[in-house]
Amino acid sequence: MQKILVIGAGRSSTSLINYLLDHSVKENWELTLAEKDVALAEAKINGHSSAKSVSFDVSDGEALTNLVTENDLIVSMLPASLHFTVAEKCAEIGRHLLTASYLSDEIQGLSEKFQSHGKLLVMEMGLDPGIDHMSAMKVLDRIKEDGYELTAFETFTGGLLARDDEKENPWQYKFTWNPRNVVIAGQGFVKFIQEGRFKYIPYNKLFRRTEVIHIPGYGYFEGYANRDSLKYLDLYNLRGIKTLYRGTLRRPGFCKAWDVFVQLGATDDSFKMENVAEMTHRQFLNSFLSYNPNDSVELKLAHYMNLDIDDEIMYKIKWLGLFSDELIGLDNGTPAQILEHILKKKWTLDSSDHDMIVMWHKFNYLDNGQEKQVESHMVAIGDDDTNTAMSKTVGLPLAITAKLILQNKINLSGVHIPTRKEIYEPVLEELGQMGFEFSERSVDPS
Amino acid sequence: MQKILVIGAGRSSTSLINYLLDHSVKENWELTLAEKDVALAEAKINGHSSAKSVSFDVSDGEALTNLVTENDLIVSMLPASLHFTVAEKCAEIGRHLLTASYLSDEIQGLSEKFQSHGKLLVMEMGLDPGIDHMSAMKVLDRIKEDGYELTAFETFTGGLLARDDEKENPWQYKFTWNPRNVVIAGQGFVKFIQEGRFKYIPYNKLFRRTEVIHIPGYGYFEGYANRDSLKYLDLYNLRGIKTLYRGTLRRPGFCKAWDVFVQLGATDDSFKMENVAEMTHRQFLNSFLSYNPNDSVELKLAHYMNLDIDDEIMYKIKWLGLFSDELIGLDNGTPAQILEHILKKKWTLDSSDHDMIVMWHKFNYLDNGQEKQVESHMVAIGDDDTNTAMSKTVGLPLAITAKLILQNKINLSGVHIPTRKEIYEPVLEELGQMGFEFSERSVDPS
Repeated sequence: MQKILVIGAGRSSTSLINYLLDHSVKENWELTLAEKDVALAEAKINGHSSAKSVSFDVSDGEALTNLVTENDLIVSMLPASLHFTVAEKCAEIGRHLLTASYLSDEIQGLSEKFQSHGKLLVMEMGLDPGIDHMSAMKVLDRIKEDGYELTAFETFTGGLLARDDEKENPWQYKFTWNPRNVVIAGQGFVKFIQEGRFKYIPYNKLFRRTEVIHIPGYGYFEGYANRDSLKYLDLYNLRGIKTLYRGTLRRPGFCKAWDVFVQLGATDDSFKMENVAEMTHRQFLNSFLSYNPNDSVELKLAHYMNLDIDDEIMYKIKWLGLFSDELIGLDNGTPAQILEHILKKKWTLDSSDHDMIVMWHKFNYLDNGQEKQVESHMVAIGDDDTNTAMSKTVGLPLAITAKLILQNKINLSGVHIPTRKEIYEPVLEELGQMGFEFSERSVDPS
Repeated sequence: MQKILVIGAGRSSTSLINYLLDHSVKENWELTLAEKDVALAEAKINGHSSAKSVSFDVSDGEALTNLVTENDLIVSMLPASLHFTVAEKCAEIGRHLLTASYLSDEIQGLSEKFQSHGKLLVMEMGLDPGIDHMSAMKVLDRIKEDGYELTAFETFTGGLLARDDEKENPWQYKFTWNPRNVVIAGQGFVKFIQEGRFKYIPYNKLFRRTEVIHIPGYGYFEGYANRDSLKYLDLYNLRGIKTLYRGTLRRPGFCKAWDVFVQLGATDDSFKMENVAEMTHRQFLNSFLSYNPNDSVELKLAHYMNLDIDDEIMYKIKWLGLFSDELIGLDNGTPAQILEHILKKKWTLDSSDHDMIVMWHKFNYLDNGQEKQVESHMVAIGDDDTNTAMSKTVGLPLAITAKLILQNKINLSGVHIPTRKEIYEPVLEELGQMGFEFSERSVDPS
């Protein structure tokens, strides 16, 4: 009998918990689901005989010690900021730990402690970060092993809406993950390397410097750059590469329209606005436009953004209700918080929606001086608004890794992300069997 | 015999020190100039019999205690971040203190201690902040005392180049104060109130939302908004006013050209760029532009900014040498630090230059329901690149206030800024006698 502890039973844990429950009898596992909201945890377990729930708050150090001690492997679905507390406890007591959050220097510092117990902490084991690392490293390692010289690597991921569900939504988009992160995405400075030159894009130009990407069978997408591609030079062992670019996918036309919010300042998260409680959608928009009692908000916006009044972008803004006299419904907030609240009114998945995950990689390399190009992609579609593609692609890598560790099929210790072949090979294999497979093709690079 | 201590003998202290030296015999003052660089202090004193210099570092607590104890009044010209240390010591020992820096909550907290000693700390006693407070409050108080209802207050200040010195400089601008503050000016979010509506401008639109201002005898200027006008609602006791706007003046065309740097991201101060030691001016510019081996940097910039290749803005950028293959000459730096370094090569005052300070206020009020408007302005021109208008307008308000306090003509205690009539009336009067006078005129508001 092996014991698994999952901390956190929110929306993103659904697929993880279902996988663990489905395998629990055969694998002889006992699952404990620790969660503040015990009713939520009970609902997820749904009376399964191999599982129990406990009420748990991560600030309760004694409860954490007891839970970690009682279990062999811990999966933490807590917010990223709370992971160090859990990781420190697992390092101290000596237990395996898995999370889907970014690895911090602080957590990396626990590696020796995990090693001394012969235990493994895998961070960044979700979708992005997670599947992106694994699927990229699989090809990158192969190109290197074949003796070719890698010249360029570009990778894009998007959490979108399946084509059939886009219907009359002119953005072809709804929130499929943390809405706040979507609203403030890209703030800061973008850094990447192209043809050997370091390139920088400020936030105010980010959504106008998109790339067009075509994926066979799924059509065209546009991609904007993620913040810091340069850190992947070391993470993926790519020093010397000429082009390295990571980005986020949207349907064509999204970025140009989203840029209106960026230019207005409506995604700013640095200050609280005045008089929010009485503010309408229209007034929110107007507060970023010049005072002019003779012009409509529509006209002022079109003029400010250099748009025709009948531009498709104007329709997208109208569809979101931003010109309406509806009250926002918040007592206070930053522009970003208010915009998120308004967007949620239209961009929340309903039970008939299916989300779609798209991940796309492009690799260029020299084969005896001749340029070659390989593209690979994965597309996953959600079942409904609970069993989303996002929940599956985040939760299943964690669940599969947990199984492989408990089966002694991953023999690593210390702190890692899944760029290691010992991890990505078996995990990708099982993901592929479950339908989360990458299609690869050679492309003429000219 | 009264003793005055001036801490800091840099460029900005010239006019302050000269005024104090000029009045020292008649007023029976002994002046001590405390400065890290004693040679600099000696040069400023130039053998004057009423003055001496001492080597001083503000981190030396014992030296600070001794110097503060020995003197009756202290003027600190240190960087703003060091003022709390000096203010705390003056509060403890009980000495008057004057600075030209912004008042912080921390320093405001010392008010009772100053009061208990019957001593006065005046902050924000330079040009901007300083003369702006005094000259605005003089008119604002008068309008209130006359029983009129104030509806709008706008105020702009600029440190510029005198018209005759602009010559072939297409920017009609050089640095006349801290260059770093000019490069990062406006970062953050602008807030003001117009016709009763709160309005917000993000940094990326700031230099495109300028106002045109005409000053009789000096021509046209353009003004961009300062960060937070709303805090002046309380500072100037203006709650209920319909329009409140503070800004910075430039010559027409400056802002539209400066906006190129903003749009590129070249004023960003948040990250260190790569490979700075080998970087040329042209490469610096190119690092913010797309990779395209077939287009020149000039063409890429014009395209990115939607400019004709022969636009006046392109010429301004060229005049600054940004397309040249000259090495930057720094080992590392943020974009803002590198841009500042490049700009200094062209925008540093030389001995034939005369700087110019322009301050302009506009007041609207209702006189029995009838709208009235008053404008007032002050222009000051520098003698040369040492006795600048900036040095005079920052230093003389401090010097005059020091004299008035020692003559017991300002009978306040505690921490203040010069919005108080007890301070601004006598200081403005003497500034006017010295030629720093505001011209006021009524204007038809329609």
